[in-house]
Amino acid sequence: MSKQEIENGKVRVFALGGVGEIGKNMYGIEVDEDIIVVDAGLMFPDDDMLGVDIVIPDVSYLVENEERVKGIILTHGHEDHIGGLSYVLKKINVPVYGTKLTLGLVEEKLKEAGILKETTLRLIDSNSRVKLGKTPVSFFRTSHSIPDCVGVCIETSQGAVVHTGDFKFDQTPVDGKHAEIGKMAAIGQKGVLCLLSDSTNAERPGTTKSEAEVGIGIKDVFARTSGRLIVTSFASNVHRLQQVIQATAAANRKLSIVGKSMVRVITIASKLGYLKMPKDLVIDIDEVNRYKPEQVVILTTGSQGEPMSALTRMARGAHRHITITENDTVIIAASAIPGNEKSVSSVIDQLHRIGADVVYGSQAVHASGHGSQEELKLMLNLMKPKYFLPIHGEIRMQHAHRDLGMNVGIKPERIYIVEKGEVVEFSNNQARRAGKVPSGHVLIDGLGVGDVGNIVLRDRRLLSKDGILVVVVTLNKKTSTIVSGPNIISRGFVYVRESEALLDQSNELVSSILQKCVTENVSEWSSLKSNIREGLSRFLFEKTKRRPMILPIIMEV
Amino acid sequence: MSKQEIENGKVRVFALGGVGEIGKNMYGIEVDEDIIVVDAGLMFPDDDMLGVDIVIPDVSYLVENEERVKGIILTHGHEDHIGGLSYVLKKINVPVYGTKLTLGLVEEKLKEAGILKETTLRLIDSNSRVKLGKTPVSFFRTSHSIPDCVGVCIETSQGAVVHTGDFKFDQTPVDGKHAEIGKMAAIGQKGVLCLLSDSTNAERPGTTKSEAEVGIGIKDVFARTSGRLIVTSFASNVHRLQQVIQATAAANRKLSIVGKSMVRVITIASKLGYLKMPKDLVIDIDEVNRYKPEQVVILTTGSQGEPMSALTRMARGAHRHITITENDTVIIAASAIPGNEKSVSSVIDQLHRIGADVVYGSQAVHASGHGSQEELKLMLNLMKPKYFLPIHGEIRMQHAHRDLGMNVGIKPERIYIVEKGEVVEFSNNQARRAGKVPSGHVLIDGLGVGDVGNIVLRDRRLLSKDGILVVVVTLNKKTSTIVSGPNIISRGFVYVRESEALLDQSNELVSSILQKCVTENVSEWSSLKSNIREGLSRFLFEKTKRRPMILPIIMEV
Repeated sequence: MSKQEIENGKVRVFALGGVGEIGKNMYGIEVDEDIIVVDAGLMFPDDDMLGVDIVIPDVSYLVENEERVKGIILTHGHEDHIGGLSYVLKKINVPVYGTKLTLGLVEEKLKEAGILKETTLRLIDSNSRVKLGKTPVSFFRTSHSIPDCVGVCIETSQGAVVHTGDFKFDQTPVDGKHAEIGKMAAIGQKGVLCLLSDSTNAERPGTTKSEAEVGIGIKDVFARTSGRLIVTSFASNVHRLQQVIQATAAANRKLSIVGKSMVRVITIASKLGYLKMPKDLVIDIDEVNRYKPEQVVILTTGSQGEPMSALTRMARGAHRHITITENDTVIIAASAIPGNEKSVSSVIDQLHRIGADVVYGSQAVHASGHGSQEELKLMLNLMKPKYFLPIHGEIRMQHAHRDLGMNVGIKPERIYIVEKGEVVEFSNNQARRAGKVPSGHVLIDGLGVGDVGNIVLRDRRLLSKDGILVVVVTLNKKTSTIVSGPNIISRGFVYVRESEALLDQSNELVSSILQKCVTENVSEWSSLKSNIREGLSRFLFEKTKRRPMILPIIMEV
Repeated sequence: MSKQEIENGKVRVFALGGVGEIGKNMYGIEVDEDIIVVDAGLMFPDDDMLGVDIVIPDVSYLVENEERVKGIILTHGHEDHIGGLSYVLKKINVPVYGTKLTLGLVEEKLKEAGILKETTLRLIDSNSRVKLGKTPVSFFRTSHSIPDCVGVCIETSQGAVVHTGDFKFDQTPVDGKHAEIGKMAAIGQKGVLCLLSDSTNAERPGTTKSEAEVGIGIKDVFARTSGRLIVTSFASNVHRLQQVIQATAAANRKLSIVGKSMVRVITIASKLGYLKMPKDLVIDIDEVNRYKPEQVVILTTGSQGEPMSALTRMARGAHRHITITENDTVIIAASAIPGNEKSVSSVIDQLHRIGADVVYGSQAVHASGHGSQEELKLMLNLMKPKYFLPIHGEIRMQHAHRDLGMNVGIKPERIYIVEKGEVVEFSNNQARRAGKVPSGHVLIDGLGVGDVGNIVLRDRRLLSKDGILVVVVTLNKKTSTIVSGPNIISRGFVYVRESEALLDQSNELVSSILQKCVTENVSEWSSLKSNIREGLSRFLFEKTKRRPMILPIIMEV
């Protein structure tokens, strides 16, 4: 949409990420000329994105319309909401709005990326009222698995566009700060044009467990344990860390904090007042062995079974300070993020192998940060939106959320399931689908942003399956004779020592193909190469039923 | 253990697979001189076994002691119990014992492997009594997610060694054939030396749902559906297939069967009388479109979201006969096997994207085939074993099963958690750990059995992460001059078109390294290569933070 096409009185809503997927949440709300962005998250790569570190949204639409972008509002400090920010800010320099803890976490990231100084950070709280361009924006507090979360209310001439952020309704919040239900009801009373609401747990019946229950579970395990305690959780779940801290103090133990992200979050959250840390509770990791096992708790990263995390290394005996023994009790106070099931199981199995006592799974040491069906319906009933966009989730979750919307009386034609980039446009209180803005995955591998695409990934997939055979031959172009080679080198295909015969036969085959080409005067290198590739591929498939990548290289002298 | 070391009156038990893992079940029970093998399964590869098709147990101990192996007893026809059989029988030719359906499924496999004729298959039923070597063996029927399952009772002078096979206690079995509880109790009465029991669901409280409940769920969905129905399930779950058949007939629909393994199992199970198929129910897949949607049910493979399965292709619009539309209802009557969660979710999402009605997950269309904690305790109480080996499961499941054993009064010192290969030896009614027999994974990739090992897998992992750079140069050995090259070719590393500068710089770097080597008279090819590898690797990591495999090839003329 160019500037000219935007008429006054129009509101447009679209997702650059976060729909049809778990992660990289980023939404655009256009009010007349102004674009307001909500969140800028990252996503962890799918299994088939081999070698990719992280994935961020394609923001070329925002880059094209930079002068119209009035700011990025962050709902909370989770990676799937802030992890893409530094990449986005390198492309468009716009103000960033967030609560204290959220900006605290963001500052670290911007510092690392070397763009903290040139970025305008604007602190808000749930009572703030700001203007982005001409549009007033207000906020409401929600409960989630990190403190200081807000939902966003964008006030347009047609009514409010409300983005819930991530939420549950926790009736016994750890920090005593309840979701602002009254404020939500008031927003609903005033009139909501469109609600964008969190679909993560739309498939789950009932109500999500309170975080406080997890604290009780942790205290129970502490009470019955006489040996050393090792606790792992998501580093960002400050409420849970607080409960581990309280349980540690109550058990008269010392706490040692291990793992980069755990140390980082605890430092920031303590400094900003989101974490109460009793004096003299924390000891350094190299002091742990000076205490008796029953006097310490180790709080560590590694809840997803990441191979290089502190917990995994402790379990493998590869950690510098701590080795887990059969006398230890390990609490996995987290659930496996989809896709991590196997690595989490494998660290649990490794701990069992050592003989440690492992507390995990259904044993009441985790609660989701996202509301279940009853809570999602409550949000819909509070907001009473005219139109409803289920966001933040895979499409099956968006669909389940749509069904909940219909349950509470929203007409199906007023519920929009959108894919990335799809625009829903509101004018005169009527909604319609209005085309697409560019959107997609940008893959980040090492320092490369977007330089890994389908061809590179396809090659990595091929290489990972059956390896590679490189065939090199040096030819004299003038005389059309073989000067050296063919040499065949393989990697990831077969054990060379046990497959000498196969490689010898391959060599003979290539020689005969070359000979034939030379005789027939096939001097085109490309057809020479494809002859080698096809001949060798057929031969190897017949012999091994494998299809390694074949890379013929012809050197000329 | 050589023949000489085996004394009379000794019983030895070990697992060649199935403990510390899910899959490739294979157990050895030695009674004096005789070795009795129970099951010969396969396992699907872990994520880090790139390109591997299947994994089977290392049976070198059986090969070394072939003359002592008196037979392989198959408890039932699932792949994790029979899938390795044809590979094992190629190495040792021993008789195979199994029930009618199990042998029916095995015959197909042996035919494919070309060893059906030379294999001795011995049909048993749950009332059979056979002798393997000098040892009497009897059986008892169990309930599981395939018909015709047995547990095995090996009668030794010290009491029975009992292997439960896979089991649950289903009080309303679909085929009316209950688990033989009376027989189990009688075996327990007579005296069980050692029980090997299925640990799969040892972490799950309560009792596993009856398969009959799934039938009710399926009928409910059929009753409320007015469009076309597509049902997917595990092909081997004959009970469930029977219930789909009944629901189809009751709804006055026709049934079309799609997918190789689905057709194969239904053919065999019908022929052998395990599946009752009403006359004229089945129609060919190319007839489906001649019927109205409300007149057909399509029963298909693909319950695990396998990319090439019929269901996935129907969802992608890549199936020759059937394309799923928004008017279809798809029932996923299966759960995701650990590791398949993401692929199952992705096919469910794809179906949602199309707009089909998808019935899955908690919606009562699946029941496990393995007993939960109450059933496992019942088995322990029936058998009253002196010693207990939890088998068939990851180590955390074996541990959970051990806890259940202690619950029902078995002393912890009489419960043995074994890893693959570990031998528990019984003499004079006393047990002790008695060393190990060789054991491990044998990886099968294409036609290769065991020719893919750690080095090949390591290379595939490296290749999959950051790709490969091949550096080729032709040198004149006598004059130590570069005749041609260096040529750099990359695959799976970066987009070549966008990274020309990087590749040019790499080329220059290699040229300068070569030049330096030539000047310094480094004529050893190996150090020349390692200089190139190290220099280029450092340069590329600095520029990209990636570590592609670097393969220098030096051609001599």
